[in-house]
Amino acid sequence: VEGQEADFIQSSLEGVKPVDITELLEEFDAEESKYVLDLLAPQVGAEVVIELEEDLQGRFLTIFSSEEIARYIDCLDSDDGVHLLNLLSISRREEVISLLENEEKAGHLLDLLRYDDDVAGGLMAKELIKANHNWTIKRCIEEIRKQAENVQKIYSVYVVDDHDKLLGKVSLKRIILADDNTKIADIYDSDIAMVETFVEEEEVVQIMQKYDLDALPVVNVRGKLMGRITIDDVLDVITEQAEEDIQMMSGISADVEEDDTVWIISKARLPWLVIGLVGGLLGAKFISLFEADIALVPVMAFFIPLITATGGNVGIQSSTIVVQGLANSSVFRDSIFKKLIKTFLVAVVNGIILAIIVFGIVIFSTSDQTIATTVSTALFSVVLLASFMGTITPLILDKLGVNPAIASGPFITTANDLLGLAVYFFVAHQLYGL
Amino acid sequence: VEGQEADFIQSSLEGVKPVDITELLEEFDAEESKYVLDLLAPQVGAEVVIELEEDLQGRFLTIFSSEEIARYIDCLDSDDGVHLLNLLSISRREEVISLLENEEKAGHLLDLLRYDDDVAGGLMAKELIKANHNWTIKRCIEEIRKQAENVQKIYSVYVVDDHDKLLGKVSLKRIILADDNTKIADIYDSDIAMVETFVEEEEVVQIMQKYDLDALPVVNVRGKLMGRITIDDVLDVITEQAEEDIQMMSGISADVEEDDTVWIISKARLPWLVIGLVGGLLGAKFISLFEADIALVPVMAFFIPLITATGGNVGIQSSTIVVQGLANSSVFRDSIFKKLIKTFLVAVVNGIILAIIVFGIVIFSTSDQTIATTVSTALFSVVLLASFMGTITPLILDKLGVNPAIASGPFITTANDLLGLAVYFFVAHQLYGL
Repeated sequence: VEGQEADFIQSSLEGVKPVDITELLEEFDAEESKYVLDLLAPQVGAEVVIELEEDLQGRFLTIFSSEEIARYIDCLDSDDGVHLLNLLSISRREEVISLLENEEKAGHLLDLLRYDDDVAGGLMAKELIKANHNWTIKRCIEEIRKQAENVQKIYSVYVVDDHDKLLGKVSLKRIILADDNTKIADIYDSDIAMVETFVEEEEVVQIMQKYDLDALPVVNVRGKLMGRITIDDVLDVITEQAEEDIQMMSGISADVEEDDTVWIISKARLPWLVIGLVGGLLGAKFISLFEADIALVPVMAFFIPLITATGGNVGIQSSTIVVQGLANSSVFRDSIFKKLIKTFLVAVVNGIILAIIVFGIVIFSTSDQTIATTVSTALFSVVLLASFMGTITPLILDKLGVNPAIASGPFITTANDLLGLAVYFFVAHQLYGL
Repeated sequence: VEGQEADFIQSSLEGVKPVDITELLEEFDAEESKYVLDLLAPQVGAEVVIELEEDLQGRFLTIFSSEEIARYIDCLDSDDGVHLLNLLSISRREEVISLLENEEKAGHLLDLLRYDDDVAGGLMAKELIKANHNWTIKRCIEEIRKQAENVQKIYSVYVVDDHDKLLGKVSLKRIILADDNTKIADIYDSDIAMVETFVEEEEVVQIMQKYDLDALPVVNVRGKLMGRITIDDVLDVITEQAEEDIQMMSGISADVEEDDTVWIISKARLPWLVIGLVGGLLGAKFISLFEADIALVPVMAFFIPLITATGGNVGIQSSTIVVQGLANSSVFRDSIFKKLIKTFLVAVVNGIILAIIVFGIVIFSTSDQTIATTVSTALFSVVLLASFMGTITPLILDKLGVNPAIASGPFITTANDLLGLAVYFFVAHQLYGL
């Protein structure tokens, strides 16, 4: 790109898939990238831009003129177009929309801008093929011919009545196999899944995954066909959700990536570190209550990390199992009571085994029966309490409408550290008779 | 189900989607479920069984006769059929295959059984529609008519030469829009993605997600079309991988679910708890080296949990960012050197902020300058070291071919606990001049 030989770039990018060009551009700076993009056909350029990471898209949009953005959006499906518009300021949005050549698309975009991007209305695209139930297959094929240019992947033709109310769908396969004069009304499948515009994206994902759907029609409250959600968009939602949950579990509080700046990454990591710090300081305050004990029996201090680490590990394990159970929600899940009983039994099994191991090793290496008893008793209690906390916290958060994955992270670890210390020093204080 | 009124069950399940019947059955015991399944048409029953969780499927297969299993497999796509066969013993597999009515399917299944289930060959189904490049659209539609019964979703027609070598594909949309006498050779798209049978499922997922594919053809080393992988199978792989990574991060060593028995869950949780325990015991051993110091300055013990918790949190944050970076692999990622520099800078920023906070609070509450200096110096060093460990461990594991997600879990926490203790007591010992 240094030499900027336009011909060379053009010829070498010919036939390369847009997403691969995107990967290349992510290595360039904005000016270089714009130079390359200007050399590409608008259709290809638009697909390259839409595949870029969101922060890069934002940077690009600032150096493009409104005309250029409009030209790209003209080439994109409405769901991708609205995604770009959402990155612009409101006044610039209107300018871009007014510059669109395709007036139908402009209308679609204005329509879609009304929805939040985490509900069905925000995921859907307006491009789809619909047919009136009174049409024949022949008429339907003509219509496909007319509409097909705007619709990349057809999957199914949606069947509507005279008021655009969604009745069902006909698969392309069925259209190919049917006789030209068959009426749509006679062959369409009326037993189909659909969602209303305000349904949350998590539910959309669940429905599409459960019923193995490639596309899901979206209707308004009166059943009018508004758009459709395709499987590729849902795939992205699933991947994002999984990444988000994992970041939440690791105590990273914003959606960061390796490529972000040092400052953005530091800022995203700091909140939970500070919370952990406050937990640690509370722990220090708590241990200080037993200063006299420790001065007399310093061996007490040796097992602090053992107790806190086990509490943390057990808590995270428990909460992860509960969180995943909540995610695979089903009507007939175990009741909370049954969950707690089970958690309790698992904790008892693990707690007894760990306590025996620790008792054996401590007795063997120190021959100090008091500390062996203290550590193993405290460990057993901590496993029980940490399991209980790890189970109950995500359930409570879920009831409160908070993403329960947050409970599998530093939150549980910090809480269980404190809990573990309390149990340990309480037991030690009693057993040593101090 | 108690009363077992067959008519009532049959009528109430009519029109219910198979996956919903599956959810119902998961609440019943095997005998009750078999009673219900026997009342359903084989086609519906087969789909209900394939949606069951794997351990339930295994239990069902033991109470079904080989004839019944064969009848179900006759109704299933080859990829689902082979999944059921894989749950049977080898001798029973052969018996079931010999009982299949559809001989073509029997051949398909024998073919698919050869592949591991985590490579492209194990994900693919043999059902697809292919057309010779010399055919006309008319001939192609006739062929679709013939083959369509076996293929649930068509997506594209694959174009092959006389030796079954994959040349490209034609979308159904294109077939509908083309003239009857057009030759396939003139309209097919030759620039398509394909994978060989031995490609790992992770790579299959990446390709399909990157290029937004609904179906991906699978070829053998000589380019012969062997089968195709559809997006719904890939969706399941993605979800499974995400769940697996999260479980690995939480120190759960086998794929367990809330519904599993107490013993299975306990067993899956124990290994990492024991490793954490051993880490804790090593920590105790280490602290015991400073027994005299603690007896003199018990305040040293107060901040043990603070140091270990921060080390653990920082380590998990770092490793998560690295692991997610590895997952979104791209040719042009930052070099390892650049990653380490960045990690170092982030650690310095966070370390300084945390150290200042801790110094302030400790000085304010204890007026003890030595302990404030000790804790903040140790904390800063621990943040640096834990970041380094959290970054380097997943990179090394990845190079060794181990799933790097394992490094984001108890492994890092345990290692960083020990590292944190070492730094802390070393610093304390120096500063107190003991």
